[in-house]
Amino acid sequence: MNRKLRFGLIGAGRIGPVHAETLAFRVPQAQLVAIADLNRQAGQTVAARCNIPRILASGADIVADPEIEAVAICSPTDTHADLIVSAARAGKHIFCEKPVSLSLKEIDRSLAAVDAAGVKLQVGFNRRFDTNFLRVRQAVASGEIGTPNLFHIVSRDPFPPPLTYLRPSGGIFLDMMVHDFDMARFLIGDEVEEVFAAGAVMVDPGFAREDDFDTAIVLLRFRGGAIGTLDNSRKSTFGYDQRVEILGSKGKIATENRYPNQVVVSGEKCVYSDLPYNFFMQRYTDSFTSEMQVFVEAVLEDKPIPVTGADSRVPVVMALAARKSSDEHRPVRLSEICE
Amino acid sequence: MNRKLRFGLIGAGRIGPVHAETLAFRVPQAQLVAIADLNRQAGQTVAARCNIPRILASGADIVADPEIEAVAICSPTDTHADLIVSAARAGKHIFCEKPVSLSLKEIDRSLAAVDAAGVKLQVGFNRRFDTNFLRVRQAVASGEIGTPNLFHIVSRDPFPPPLTYLRPSGGIFLDMMVHDFDMARFLIGDEVEEVFAAGAVMVDPGFAREDDFDTAIVLLRFRGGAIGTLDNSRKSTFGYDQRVEILGSKGKIATENRYPNQVVVSGEKCVYSDLPYNFFMQRYTDSFTSEMQVFVEAVLEDKPIPVTGADSRVPVVMALAARKSSDEHRPVRLSEICE
Amino acid sequence: MNRKLRFGLIGAGRIGPVHAETLAFRVPQAQLVAIADLNRQAGQTVAARCNIPRILASGADIVADPEIEAVAICSPTDTHADLIVSAARAGKHIFCEKPVSLSLKEIDRSLAAVDAAGVKLQVGFNRRFDTNFLRVRQAVASGEIGTPNLFHIVSRDPFPPPLTYLRPSGGIFLDMMVHDFDMARFLIGDEVEEVFAAGAVMVDPGFAREDDFDTAIVLLRFRGGAIGTLDNSRKSTFGYDQRVEILGSKGKIATENRYPNQVVVSGEKCVYSDLPYNFFMQRYTDSFTSEMQVFVEAVLEDKPIPVTGADSRVPVVMALAARKSSDEHRPVRLSEICE
Amino acid sequence: MNRKLRFGLIGAGRIGPVHAETLAFRVPQAQLVAIADLNRQAGQTVAARCNIPRILASGADIVADPEIEAVAICSPTDTHADLIVSAARAGKHIFCEKPVSLSLKEIDRSLAAVDAAGVKLQVGFNRRFDTNFLRVRQAVASGEIGTPNLFHIVSRDPFPPPLTYLRPSGGIFLDMMVHDFDMARFLIGDEVEEVFAAGAVMVDPGFAREDDFDTAIVLLRFRGGAIGTLDNSRKSTFGYDQRVEILGSKGKIATENRYPNQVVVSGEKCVYSDLPYNFFMQRYTDSFTSEMQVFVEAVLEDKPIPVTGADSRVPVVMALAARKSSDEHRPVRLSEICE
Repeated sequence: MNRKLRFGLIGAGRIGPVHAETLAFRVPQAQLVAIADLNRQAGQTVAARCNIPRILASGADIVADPEIEAVAICSPTDTHADLIVSAARAGKHIFCEKPVSLSLKEIDRSLAAVDAAGVKLQVGFNRRFDTNFLRVRQAVASGEIGTPNLFHIVSRDPFPPPLTYLRPSGGIFLDMMVHDFDMARFLIGDEVEEVFAAGAVMVDPGFAREDDFDTAIVLLRFRGGAIGTLDNSRKSTFGYDQRVEILGSKGKIATENRYPNQVVVSGEKCVYSDLPYNFFMQRYTDSFTSEMQVFVEAVLEDKPIPVTGADSRVPVVMALAARKSSDEHRPVRLSEICE
Repeated sequence: MNRKLRFGLIGAGRIGPVHAETLAFRVPQAQLVAIADLNRQAGQTVAARCNIPRILASGADIVADPEIEAVAICSPTDTHADLIVSAARAGKHIFCEKPVSLSLKEIDRSLAAVDAAGVKLQVGFNRRFDTNFLRVRQAVASGEIGTPNLFHIVSRDPFPPPLTYLRPSGGIFLDMMVHDFDMARFLIGDEVEEVFAAGAVMVDPGFAREDDFDTAIVLLRFRGGAIGTLDNSRKSTFGYDQRVEILGSKGKIATENRYPNQVVVSGEKCVYSDLPYNFFMQRYTDSFTSEMQVFVEAVLEDKPIPVTGADSRVPVVMALAARKSSDEHRPVRLSEICE
Repeated sequence: MNRKLRFGLIGAGRIGPVHAETLAFRVPQAQLVAIADLNRQAGQTVAARCNIPRILASGADIVADPEIEAVAICSPTDTHADLIVSAARAGKHIFCEKPVSLSLKEIDRSLAAVDAAGVKLQVGFNRRFDTNFLRVRQAVASGEIGTPNLFHIVSRDPFPPPLTYLRPSGGIFLDMMVHDFDMARFLIGDEVEEVFAAGAVMVDPGFAREDDFDTAIVLLRFRGGAIGTLDNSRKSTFGYDQRVEILGSKGKIATENRYPNQVVVSGEKCVYSDLPYNFFMQRYTDSFTSEMQVFVEAVLEDKPIPVTGADSRVPVVMALAARKSSDEHRPVRLSEICE
Repeated sequence: MNRKLRFGLIGAGRIGPVHAETLAFRVPQAQLVAIADLNRQAGQTVAARCNIPRILASGADIVADPEIEAVAICSPTDTHADLIVSAARAGKHIFCEKPVSLSLKEIDRSLAAVDAAGVKLQVGFNRRFDTNFLRVRQAVASGEIGTPNLFHIVSRDPFPPPLTYLRPSGGIFLDMMVHDFDMARFLIGDEVEEVFAAGAVMVDPGFAREDDFDTAIVLLRFRGGAIGTLDNSRKSTFGYDQRVEILGSKGKIATENRYPNQVVVSGEKCVYSDLPYNFFMQRYTDSFTSEMQVFVEAVLEDKPIPVTGADSRVPVVMALAARKSSDEHRPVRLSEICE
């Protein structure tokens, strides 16, 4: 009773501090005992803010630490697979940021190690835990809107990352839309058969030089027949924009974006309200907490993880198919993607 | 001063009575002097309701009538071209329902006759006159949201037409989405380069038997780079659904659907409001009035028609391209379409 | 069949032209055959715009005209009673702007003349015919929200009238809030027992010099126990503001204000939409049509008028009670008001 | 650095557990070291849930405990004054639930003890810390809507408390509307001159037997001239309802109620969304955290408390005036209230 799961966190970059705060202050049954980052300064800053007692030198040290029962992997994507494999072998439960890897072989190697070790692995598709999207999923699952026929998922960032970030990230489909590929499968509750991807460079010509897009739409066709779109933009000047709508045989369900307050001013020139949440840290604070809460409970009470091995792998297949569709300017079936 | 434009109306079927009421009661400078329908009974019913003094036997009689200055062509699509040509030769101004024809040759023949006669022709893309879509167009044209990058146009009917209606109509792209092809050009203010169309049969298997779809998404790419989607469903159980959203370089603009009232009830199980307008007659009453008002003024005051020859023709090219894209399962450039 | 009711309209000032347009263009069964205004120029302008064939010299001439079956009285309030009495004696049906009179004696004299002549009288409480308020009334009448417990009626003008308008109008309670007194009775479906009125001068000190208020709240207590407020302001900088909300034993019902479009822009500094309708002419166009349509049908088909004699009188009693409450700084029972 | 303020909490009834969770899990700089409740069982339950190490027998023991630096007083209202006085004498900082007392003499005695001891006192007007109301306050303070002219504050509970709760609570004005009296002063930024109160029994006749109301409206007049209303109902069937609107000389500001999600379903019979938050614990979670965060920071960093002595006292004066107004059925000036 009142047992706490002892965590080690790897990576103090962009998402690492978010998970550190969550584990330190918002999940009562979690205890963050160590952090590691190759940039020791970054690790120290987070440790000070979140009262983390120990700062280790590397992810390997976290994995090797006997006090640690679970690792939160927040390091760059190309380190995920090795860390998962070694953590699994060390018998540690694993929370890993998305995507597991840009390579399906590496994903398969990771999942095999996790299976062999019998540890639990959850991937950071945090949006599944957002109350808006949960409510939409519930409506589809319960038949409240009938069979899904048509849908749109909108997902736009307030400003683009530095151009140097792009190539290592795998590009817009693997880095950004991978969340939306997961969301589509999660909401519709079916598997995608085919994608058609259209990318554009509308925000910054630098994206073209990096062989990437800053604007993209992917059209999906599900096995059950539903068709729909995902859209991404790297620049939504007014803030983060995350919405979905589904037309079903019995009705439509749609979620508005989220706003920090519900205040409306009727002024002399227009009726206005404050901008929506600026980015994912403000917008998804609660879902970062929920996903970690669910992970901790699943480990402590040996319950199933709500994000399966397929959930870790299929969005990457979809992203690779979208990239191929864009490269070859034709619709691509998911069955064409294998490495 | 206070001169009225004398109209003859051809076709008392679905849209004919709408225009008859508009001309009779809502456009002060219009005078509806005759109506013709092959089904004399239908013509009589409309004539009685709208105080139309004369009922003629055919469209040809309307065209030949010397009292009539302008004709409103509301008969089936395959009669449009011949009526336009003969009306133009008779020196009458022409308001014609969309589309002018399913055949580009026929459209070109019609436009040539109109040009030769120097009469005015307006096609019934009434949604351009809706205050919501006008406001969106104004925002794009004025630069209020910067350059359009990404857009979605949603257009869904409450229930499907009879299956027998489908083949003569040309199918979902020519019959239904033609309005949205026009809307996309109108709102973005640019020309489309390429389309990719995905159709599905989700509402009624009968659509498949008629070689048609009841659900469709078309992805458009504009010359200026903007990408976006149009979606259509033949069955939106809760009512008519007509919305657009555009993400521009400086902001986003979006229109909600229209509702008959602004009343919200907080009940014991949910917070609810009445359904939106059921279909186009309720939803677009005002825009049917506006388009006719603009047409009448353009004729009486010899001003330019706000819907050009290209506006009559290009949406049909887009619909044919969408059909080809769906048939051949690949993106199709508009330049591939010529007859 | 298709018979039209022949109207004479008295008064071409503020509301007269509104009713003239309604009768001329929007109510098919009405025929506006004559207009009179002491300012002949004003009468001519309206006649030209609305195709009214005859311009008479005075209200008396309208009343005396044998062709006219119904009169629309839009002249200043202090002329209403005499015109009603003479019109009734002449056997004409009467549509009269609110209020019938500032004096209960005059109202009683008018109602008696109407009763004696057996003609129909409808008072211009047009807001009862607005689809929003009708929907609220329907919810109360049908029990959808249970028994009304608590309510707020908000009614604010965009800008104040000229100060010279104030004294003859009877002040804010008789001129402006009289509409809201009617609305309260209409929506709740019960009679008021007591009022407490608080007035303030916040907009323009000139109101104080005219012994009037520009801002006021009246607290009402209904016989059935419900309590609620009416508020008025002469200056709502952003436009006309007309809303109600009722808390019932089973739920709450509320109406938003009305807006010319449903467009929302997410800009760089805020999320905004256009201002609401500026004033009553834009906001209540449809209800001006509906009230006249209902009046015309009631006369032509001899059906009951939906606004009774009591409906003409009680709001004035309430306004007089509100004024007394404000003057004597205490709650006033309606039973205290009699002349 | 990273110093924590050591709290003792008195009272494990309704609001006590809320503050216990806040101090235990959501305010990093707070440390909850002891709890006391006359009902030891209740204290134990909260202690177990919130990891509170020590359970003391009484508030006096908390006050006497040398480890404790600050007390959170959540016991019944009639115990507040004595606890404040003894805590102040013991040199402890004090967070006390509203109201400090139903008696002005007791409040004055408390404030004098606090002043004499030089400790800090904050009263639990948590709604001031809600992001919606803060945004409204900011708009008034910055002049964004000009000078406030007219306002409405709506505050309704989902269901009534047990009837036995009523008499000790002081009735609707002292127990429930006291929050709204504070909100009115806070939002308008001025002092009230006069109140007129109307109470009704619409929900449960038992309220009448307890000499209380379940429904009430109070009309306020501020020194600066603004007039407005507060309304309370003990039963808002659909959930907690907390909104305000202010009309200023330059515009209007209004806050919608808060909802757990932003999902809208267009179903076969209506367009609907989920009910709002059910009650204060869900609705004000964040503001309970913020008020405590602010208190802790004010103590640790010796900054001024944002709720002054007057803020503790004036809402009680207003509640007493409202009660007197209702009893004597007349407007009552605040200057009439003194004990």
